[in-house]
Amino acid sequence: MAPYVTLIEEGLAPFVGEHELDYIRPQAEAACAQLRAGTGPGAEFLGWLDLPVKVAEHIEAVQQAAAEIQTRAEVLVVVGIGGSYLGARAALDALTDEFATGSVRVLFAGHNLSSTYHARLLDYLADKDFCVNVISKSGTTTEPAIAFRLLRELLEKKYGRDGARRRIYATTDAGRGALRAMAEQEGYASFVIPADIGGRYSVLTPVGLLPMAAGGLDIARLVQGAHRAMEELQAPELADNPCYRYAALRNILLRKGKLVELLAMYEPCLHTFGEWWKQLFGESEGKDGKGLFPASVVFSTDLHSLGQYIQDGARILFETVLYIKETSRQVTIPHLEDDLDQLNYLAGKSMEFVNSCAFRGTLQAHVQGGTPNIVLELPELSEYSLGYLFYFMKKACAISGYLLGVNPFIQQGVEAYKQNMFALLGKPKREQGGVVG
Amino acid sequence: MAPYVTLIEEGLAPFVGEHELDYIRPQAEAACAQLRAGTGPGAEFLGWLDLPVKVAEHIEAVQQAAAEIQTRAEVLVVVGIGGSYLGARAALDALTDEFATGSVRVLFAGHNLSSTYHARLLDYLADKDFCVNVISKSGTTTEPAIAFRLLRELLEKKYGRDGARRRIYATTDAGRGALRAMAEQEGYASFVIPADIGGRYSVLTPVGLLPMAAGGLDIARLVQGAHRAMEELQAPELADNPCYRYAALRNILLRKGKLVELLAMYEPCLHTFGEWWKQLFGESEGKDGKGLFPASVVFSTDLHSLGQYIQDGARILFETVLYIKETSRQVTIPHLEDDLDQLNYLAGKSMEFVNSCAFRGTLQAHVQGGTPNIVLELPELSEYSLGYLFYFMKKACAISGYLLGVNPFIQQGVEAYKQNMFALLGKPKREQGGVVG
Repeated sequence: MAPYVTLIEEGLAPFVGEHELDYIRPQAEAACAQLRAGTGPGAEFLGWLDLPVKVAEHIEAVQQAAAEIQTRAEVLVVVGIGGSYLGARAALDALTDEFATGSVRVLFAGHNLSSTYHARLLDYLADKDFCVNVISKSGTTTEPAIAFRLLRELLEKKYGRDGARRRIYATTDAGRGALRAMAEQEGYASFVIPADIGGRYSVLTPVGLLPMAAGGLDIARLVQGAHRAMEELQAPELADNPCYRYAALRNILLRKGKLVELLAMYEPCLHTFGEWWKQLFGESEGKDGKGLFPASVVFSTDLHSLGQYIQDGARILFETVLYIKETSRQVTIPHLEDDLDQLNYLAGKSMEFVNSCAFRGTLQAHVQGGTPNIVLELPELSEYSLGYLFYFMKKACAISGYLLGVNPFIQQGVEAYKQNMFALLGKPKREQGGVVG
Repeated sequence: MAPYVTLIEEGLAPFVGEHELDYIRPQAEAACAQLRAGTGPGAEFLGWLDLPVKVAEHIEAVQQAAAEIQTRAEVLVVVGIGGSYLGARAALDALTDEFATGSVRVLFAGHNLSSTYHARLLDYLADKDFCVNVISKSGTTTEPAIAFRLLRELLEKKYGRDGARRRIYATTDAGRGALRAMAEQEGYASFVIPADIGGRYSVLTPVGLLPMAAGGLDIARLVQGAHRAMEELQAPELADNPCYRYAALRNILLRKGKLVELLAMYEPCLHTFGEWWKQLFGESEGKDGKGLFPASVVFSTDLHSLGQYIQDGARILFETVLYIKETSRQVTIPHLEDDLDQLNYLAGKSMEFVNSCAFRGTLQAHVQGGTPNIVLELPELSEYSLGYLFYFMKKACAISGYLLGVNPFIQQGVEAYKQNMFALLGKPKREQGGVVG
């Protein structure tokens, strides 16, 4: 059976010789072996590898909590930053209708320090029935901790202390940390972030699954997609494994001086998936002075923005195109009698057909302009395909990081701004240590 | 009087010597002289330079049309791509409350080729009163032309042909092109895109002003802010002119191997301003194999995403921080008896204070990590400051492009994908020529 995702390399041929893949193969194999054996750096954070199997037993509990939220609330506010919110938001943006109002509207807080943003959110919530899902390994990360204080205050004002308790869902460490202590003390419904899974690898844990389910997504299908990826992306041969191959190709391109990887998508609803992907790769690989700089674009929108640069600017880029073969909705271009806009040659055709021609035309143009293109094609955009894609990218990132020579599972550089900020805020010294995710 | 925007260079001191500014000064002066005299490349597109004066006479007509839209519609759909929508969207996102519903909701179409997006938008509009502002110099650009056909069909179905006509506002060339012809034939209310202003420089023309005004923004204040920028950013000395200085500094950093410029903002509502800025600089400078690659981030959100890379990844970046000194709304951090989250040391303080410490702490950390920082500080976020900023960036971009040695007013590279796409779509040959923005 062919893999669910297709890696198309016609846009690479002018830039990467087949012998280059031959030469990097032993390194890629070594990286895969390290990952499999748990002998590489950061091996204490490999819990995501078999998560599609392990998470199965938690799905029902998550679905039950989501159903509860759906009966109690119009709005679910997800409180979290970085990996604690990006995966769920990526999935919800990709798979729900931004113009329609589903049963529960999922909003986000504690992912920034903007007083304007939070003041407006609190105003909006004043006359809404809402629940809160607070997501933090420690419970003391500044941004979500502040937002949670604000939201808890509003909940208690609206529903009393007991009513508030029943509207708070905590996703946190199994035993340690302030949020776990709070959940026990207050009796919040709670879910566990496994200790062996870092934030940006946590989308298939309750961190991602509860907000997705509350927002109406079929999380069982999502996990099935991830499970398929887990199984078929173990194929040891680079030739048969698009995940290994993608990891190898992006390292080859980096070594050729392509310093920026641009993830390009042709559906605007995938915009937030691009943000998730940027965290995954940027935080995993950007260390020790190394790493591809990850950026993302939505086409054809950004062909009228960064298109000029990609076509003809500094030749430091390559593109990875995430292409969805069949869209969920169709629109047909109408006929117009006077044809003043000269579009009648497209009348009766679907917009999707035009989008596919934009994709192919752009691929040709950018390759001709000197920008290598890797294409990852998925048959559809659904819970299943997104689950597959999340897993695909996580595994590609782990292998790619080993190929680069970094520990893809730590993020020690994120602490630097926090320490300076704490000093400026006057945080008591005894409390500055031991802050996790 | 000190300039309205403050350029703070403490995050540059370890990376750029004062003598480097001395050495580049003659080049910067030559660039400014070319721009002033209209002797540089692309001088036929300098209409934006004195636009804050010239546009004054059109403001009332734009405001009248906006008032008309507000009485007729709940939704205004803006049809346009690239510079035809990004400026208005940036201003609306920056200055309106994303959670509240104003009198008119401004939505966008024709800025992508997604059938899913447009099908959902049409569903949403089915039971809404709406108007359309179609924005295109030519009227034949594929994306907006298709969307306009779809929306016009829906309008005619809902309101009849005459009713539809009264709900369509065309912003297009004064005399040429398909959209101008259509506007005359159908009797649409119309506004002019001056021939000497390119799409990405058009935010202060009716292209940007009509959607902004319909969405409730004070466009007169916006133009006043731009007018102030126009006047005070003529100061000939690099030392007194933050705009010239910014243009010079980013070229110095590029010549040192900093290949990516990251625009960083501490208010999430400025996200779309970052998109506008990326088009402005990317499309102006990304040519002839040259140009800084423009990317943007929102902090502290993306400190938990790209922060690791900025702190410790490949040293190819510099940051330009757009910092707003005073936010429009305040939130106070509540006290919590048990203090389980260890935040009581911040109780009674404003969230804005914490954000300002994040800004200063991050600046220190990133500079220490080897990432140069330019800071542009604005006193507030308002129509006035945004008008100023739009003009500031346009002028900085023009000078920067001349310093780089490119024509910052053309975008010939955008045509490549279009030509390939037309061939794949089977567009009749006679219609392939003469397609403008």
